[in-house]
Amino acid sequence: MSVTEIKWSETEEKIARSAFDKAYRRETTALIEEIRQYSSAIATLDDTWRLHDFLSSRRHDIDGKYDYNYPVLLFVFARLVQEKWLDLSELEGLDRDKLAKIASLAVM
Amino acid sequence: MSVTEIKWSETEEKIARSAFDKAYRRETTALIEEIRQYSSAIATLDDTWRLHDFLSSRRHDIDGKYDYNYPVLLFVFARLVQEKWLDLSELEGLDRDKLAKIASLAVM
Repeated sequence: MSVTEIKWSETEEKIARSAFDKAYRRETTALIEEIRQYSSAIATLDDTWRLHDFLSSRRHDIDGKYDYNYPVLLFVFARLVQEKWLDLSELEGLDRDKLAKIASLAVM
Repeated sequence: MSVTEIKWSETEEKIARSAFDKAYRRETTALIEEIRQYSSAIATLDDTWRLHDFLSSRRHDIDGKYDYNYPVLLFVFARLVQEKWLDLSELEGLDRDKLAKIASLAVM
């Protein structure tokens, strides 16, 4: 069975949704804090356009990353674990096979 | 003679350059201040993307507006006067015909 065909139980769906939302909150909170800090130090128009470039890149990144769709969810979680927005332990309750797949994708 | 073929004396070029730089500094200083204030109040990701949209628009606008080329300079000054980044009095020393053209373009 390919990872995109994996079934999710109702309990797993709840765990997944909660972990996904947690990572999203963490990353967006960190991003907002980073923007506030950077903005308070802006002194030139070049700094301003650097902020713009940074936001363009983060928007593209975040829009693409937080895709709550079961066929791709293992990849999403692997990336969130890899980037440390989520700890593997926060996915406890998913079946062993899913956790193993996420763990091995996360180190790729 | 069309406005794009108008000749500029050396004195006029100095006045023009100084006025252009003044308007640029005013607008960029105001923009930086606006971004700092907005950024300090960012609370959500939507606010963040609104800042991004705002910067995209301002960058496009400023990149297009500050074009220091004599064939288009009367139009540039007219816009800067219209948007109040420059006062017509700061262009004193340009010949009467140029000032009249800028003044009438500025109210269009």
